[in-house]
Amino acid sequence: MEKIDLKLLKEIAELEGTPQGAYNIRKNGGAGGRACTEHIVIDTKTDKPGIDIRIAPGTQHESVHIPVIITETGLTELVYNDFFIGEDCDVDIIAGCGIHNTGCETSQHDGVHTFYVGKNSRVRYVERHYGEGEGSGARIMNPQTIVYLEEGASINMETTQIRGIDSTKRETKVVAGAGAEVVITEKLLTHGAQTAESDMEIILQGEDSSGRVISRSVAQDTSQQVFYPRMTGEARCFGHVQCDSIIMGNAKIKSIPAIIADSMEAQLIHEAAIGRIAGDQITKLMTLGLTEEEAEEKILEGFLQ
Amino acid sequence: MEKIDLKLLKEIAELEGTPQGAYNIRKNGGAGGRACTEHIVIDTKTDKPGIDIRIAPGTQHESVHIPVIITETGLTELVYNDFFIGEDCDVDIIAGCGIHNTGCETSQHDGVHTFYVGKNSRVRYVERHYGEGEGSGARIMNPQTIVYLEEGASINMETTQIRGIDSTKRETKVVAGAGAEVVITEKLLTHGAQTAESDMEIILQGEDSSGRVISRSVAQDTSQQVFYPRMTGEARCFGHVQCDSIIMGNAKIKSIPAIIADSMEAQLIHEAAIGRIAGDQITKLMTLGLTEEEAEEKILEGFLQ
Repeated sequence: MEKIDLKLLKEIAELEGTPQGAYNIRKNGGAGGRACTEHIVIDTKTDKPGIDIRIAPGTQHESVHIPVIITETGLTELVYNDFFIGEDCDVDIIAGCGIHNTGCETSQHDGVHTFYVGKNSRVRYVERHYGEGEGSGARIMNPQTIVYLEEGASINMETTQIRGIDSTKRETKVVAGAGAEVVITEKLLTHGAQTAESDMEIILQGEDSSGRVISRSVAQDTSQQVFYPRMTGEARCFGHVQCDSIIMGNAKIKSIPAIIADSMEAQLIHEAAIGRIAGDQITKLMTLGLTEEEAEEKILEGFLQ
Repeated sequence: MEKIDLKLLKEIAELEGTPQGAYNIRKNGGAGGRACTEHIVIDTKTDKPGIDIRIAPGTQHESVHIPVIITETGLTELVYNDFFIGEDCDVDIIAGCGIHNTGCETSQHDGVHTFYVGKNSRVRYVERHYGEGEGSGARIMNPQTIVYLEEGASINMETTQIRGIDSTKRETKVVAGAGAEVVITEKLLTHGAQTAESDMEIILQGEDSSGRVISRSVAQDTSQQVFYPRMTGEARCFGHVQCDSIIMGNAKIKSIPAIIADSMEAQLIHEAAIGRIAGDQITKLMTLGLTEEEAEEKILEGFLQ
């Protein structure tokens, strides 16, 4: 692997070289390496671009890395990855896409990830987006994530996009069965003239299902962000959506959540706040010797931690 | 006035007979009485149904009552009332509509109220909706309220619809100038197969403007409620939207707020919660000797207080 590939892998998957366990690296639309394990089998799709990942029932404490790296300018791809996770598993899935665009054409990765999570399985899904390159070509990512949780299953999804992606439209849909649990943590920072939209739908369909969405974002310069988190309760369930945003410069942020109770036994809560960094927080850090810029950076870092 | 008129007036405006101060009573689409004062002049519009209410600058501690009562079945009306409020006023405006429908045809009142509130004036606006009558004819009310607040002006708007209105679509829009203050308290109870929709837009346009929306609702039986409160901050401002709903029976509630920061100096907060009455609250009141129904009624009463 080239140096630039290794740097992108580190940014999006905290990897030093090739991952442990099962993995599939996609590089510039082609194969960049693959490994299966006894319990985790990865196959290339035959009908469209993408892979099928099959995780055997009872697989415990294993991980799958499926990073995507793009270093060619002008590459645009749409990839479908399907995860079939058996019952009683406990696995980590680490996805992510890094684009290094030094050219003047748009580089774009659109990934559609669908998870079928079997009874009582626990999945931790981490997705990082990162862009760099001094070229004028845009770096675009439109991830779509669809999750079906069977009885007692859970997903803990962490998505992070910190700097470098010019335009993103994220769509997430989770359907939770009886006793299933959804936790989504979304972290986003936009700067320059970037735009980001996050459309999220959580359907608490089964009895005693629960959902929690924590969204934290920072919009700098003239960037624009729009959030549409929707939580629907169709049975006895508990749902909580919390969106906090810091606005800076001439940025614009819209937060348009929806909580929808279709059952008298649904308990749904939503909280959202948009505001700038409190002046006294900056002053306090400056008295400790930081410059205004350093103080601001520290506060944002803590906020997006 | 007839006995039924007096009962409706009491329900919607807490009036015992004719109001004090300026008033205009509209009954079954016609004139039901009017009084002006030295500072408050009411004129019938010449181009469309409705009235113009002109309040002279400096008018202090006066009130205007403009109740509407409908006792005929099959009456449908659309009325425009415009309020021109001078500078430095402090006035109470009490509107409201009561429908007594014993027939089988729909009785409907749609009122468009526009307020032009002059510099540093304070307006308290109270609007109550009430329906009754054992007829099969529907009782429908679609109020539209538009408020323009000049510098330093304020409006405190209280709307209440407790029982009896089969269908309502409420639209409220407030534009707040520099230092202006908007407070809206909305109370709603629907039952049977009633539907209610409330669409609200608060635009904090001026520096140091502020807005606060408190919405409390109860949906019983198979009734349906939808809330769309939107708060936009276009300057240094503070906005807070708070929606709490109690869901009962097979009712459905959607709460779809939006907070939109178009300025880095806008501070906006939203909170929403939908849930049923806590079981331990009922148990506690039952140990004090109340039946389950009485306990429920007491809790709802407190919630909508």
